[in-house]
Amino acid sequence: MISDKMKEYVVGSSLIRAMFDDSKRLISIYGKENVYDFSLGNPCFPPPEEFKDTLKKIIDETDPMVVHGYMNNAGHESVREKIAESINKKFNTDYNAGNIIMTVGAAGGLNVIFKTLINPGDEIIAFSPYFGEYDSYTANVSAELVKVPPVLPGFEPDLEALEKSITPKTRIVIVNSPNNPTGVVYSEETIKEIAAILRRKEVEYGLPIYIFSDEPYRELAYDGVKVPYITKVYDDTIVGYSYSKSLSMAGERIGYLLIPDEASGADDIISAATVANRILGFVNAPSLFQLAIGECVDMKMDIDCYDRNRKALYGGLTDIGYECVKPEGAFYLFVKSPLADDIEFCEKAKEFGLVLVPGTAFDCPGYIRLAYCTAYETIEKSMPQFKKLWDSVQA
Amino acid sequence: MISDKMKEYVVGSSLIRAMFDDSKRLISIYGKENVYDFSLGNPCFPPPEEFKDTLKKIIDETDPMVVHGYMNNAGHESVREKIAESINKKFNTDYNAGNIIMTVGAAGGLNVIFKTLINPGDEIIAFSPYFGEYDSYTANVSAELVKVPPVLPGFEPDLEALEKSITPKTRIVIVNSPNNPTGVVYSEETIKEIAAILRRKEVEYGLPIYIFSDEPYRELAYDGVKVPYITKVYDDTIVGYSYSKSLSMAGERIGYLLIPDEASGADDIISAATVANRILGFVNAPSLFQLAIGECVDMKMDIDCYDRNRKALYGGLTDIGYECVKPEGAFYLFVKSPLADDIEFCEKAKEFGLVLVPGTAFDCPGYIRLAYCTAYETIEKSMPQFKKLWDSVQA
Repeated sequence: MISDKMKEYVVGSSLIRAMFDDSKRLISIYGKENVYDFSLGNPCFPPPEEFKDTLKKIIDETDPMVVHGYMNNAGHESVREKIAESINKKFNTDYNAGNIIMTVGAAGGLNVIFKTLINPGDEIIAFSPYFGEYDSYTANVSAELVKVPPVLPGFEPDLEALEKSITPKTRIVIVNSPNNPTGVVYSEETIKEIAAILRRKEVEYGLPIYIFSDEPYRELAYDGVKVPYITKVYDDTIVGYSYSKSLSMAGERIGYLLIPDEASGADDIISAATVANRILGFVNAPSLFQLAIGECVDMKMDIDCYDRNRKALYGGLTDIGYECVKPEGAFYLFVKSPLADDIEFCEKAKEFGLVLVPGTAFDCPGYIRLAYCTAYETIEKSMPQFKKLWDSVQA
Repeated sequence: MISDKMKEYVVGSSLIRAMFDDSKRLISIYGKENVYDFSLGNPCFPPPEEFKDTLKKIIDETDPMVVHGYMNNAGHESVREKIAESINKKFNTDYNAGNIIMTVGAAGGLNVIFKTLINPGDEIIAFSPYFGEYDSYTANVSAELVKVPPVLPGFEPDLEALEKSITPKTRIVIVNSPNNPTGVVYSEETIKEIAAILRRKEVEYGLPIYIFSDEPYRELAYDGVKVPYITKVYDDTIVGYSYSKSLSMAGERIGYLLIPDEASGADDIISAATVANRILGFVNAPSLFQLAIGECVDMKMDIDCYDRNRKALYGGLTDIGYECVKPEGAFYLFVKSPLADDIEFCEKAKEFGLVLVPGTAFDCPGYIRLAYCTAYETIEKSMPQFKKLWDSVQA
């Protein structure tokens, strides 16, 4: 009864989610205390306590028609103004409310921009390994996802391959740094090199090529590493942001798009993206959370807890013998699978109560992803299991 | 720079929204007290006071990771269970959590179902006049919207025309009762006749034809009129519900889909719709509002205020000489345009500070829509303006 496209999706439905559901099954078999779930990027620390107070204050003190009613499809203007000001302060830019469109998370924002810019048959470039949902979002607009391989072992993008991948049909290059699944943060140098390539190709083909900077992990960078603000390096940049991870509210679906005036056709894109927000069925980002974000625009989560997890998991696993690049951002570890077949290895891991995601889900077979947005105790207690798993697969 | 499809959308962007923006322009010219905005279906009465308390109680007393984190893409199971129970109690049905998928409003639900069921080139039937966004949602899945004309003056669907409109490509018939824009509520008799036609055609073509019952206005029915529950009349029914109007929270984007076990391929549809919710970028309905709805599932708005508006506006306008069908539901009045050209008439109306929406936006030229979810005073004070407008267009 269901559409042909959906049949494929349902069969191949996100390996990550499948693992998440597996976790429940394992708990029912082994008991909660014997299952170590590293599958899903669901933050394990609550939003800051002040955020709670902000929500209640808005509910108590603001006109309920403003709190819960329709607003402009782009979002509450006052909130967009505050976000623009916050960005300006942080990155020495010059945006205003008109450059911001509130979205239903970063996923909503990506779909809005794809709908806005992409004609069927256009090409969108992603750097492997990449967030598997990019495949679905690309298919939603009947475009083709072109994959640029990484340079190993550090998982930087292969810039030569990028240049060769660009065709007159290339409309968007997705940059996701800090990266899911590798945790790698691209340096300013790398961003500048990407920008130089795109500028050359824009001239060669006489068409704009946009960077979509997918930034749900922007605030999660460790060891003092800097996450460059790409709009300052490359004019045709559109930023997609989400508060899902930075303020631990993944279920509330709140984020924004930033479309700078410098981007080619910015006015048209802003108008069209506002309409796309509506006709894709989002209509607008959830209102109360827009207003709360407006009040908390410079609120920061304490990321020390993630950093502690990162060090414990990275240290523990590499001590056992696992190989992986030390992540500088996000809350993922991308580990070389001790078995060539990463899916088989993840199946094996379940026997030890370990729920991992195969790299295949990110177009990178031979690796596995661990989300360390878990309790610290989960990491501590899982180490003997990781050791047993390691031993079990040594020939 | 923007995609070809979006170019059309932006140019032809919703007449309703254009009117809404016009309202702001008129206010800046004539002053707020001289502009009477009947354009947008944005509820003018706040959610019940208890809803406020429920939100705050959840924020205070529930684990913030449950309140704000990811859950199953279909929504919180406890909430879906409560909604199913509430439906069962009201309509003597037998649903459970598995039949419910929480959505980003009714617009989200419609897009999820279209994505789930529709192949490019399939046909979706709507009864004119209809909510103009159906055009966009249909285009999102590259389907064709087939329009069945109304029987005038009562705006009941033309059932003979319906039967003739059905082809082997027909997958969905949208039923929207209480209706936007006419306010008409279809009787159980009408629903039974529609069901009989669809059943015949299902047999003839050997394929299921689904009714999508678009029910954001279900609770808004006056004079004791009954709104039939279509799943009880026709097995292949999918219900799309929204709390936007019934609890005055249009900006919060919260609703649900009901997919009964009796519908053909129900299991597949439920799985696929859950995946579609994710890959369209909704991911899940906003979490806090899901939980709040779970606590308020039987909460009722007082609709007397809308009823009072309805009587005042209907009585006032027909006294002046305007012709319209007396609406039994929703909060719209669909009035015959005194000028043959409804767009011209709406332009004329602006000179009197009246913001109306041309019927053309609902595939029904020659009429105008008035949303009476306004303050009562707006209706009272607008009457002399409607009289002047009437006089101004009499030949």
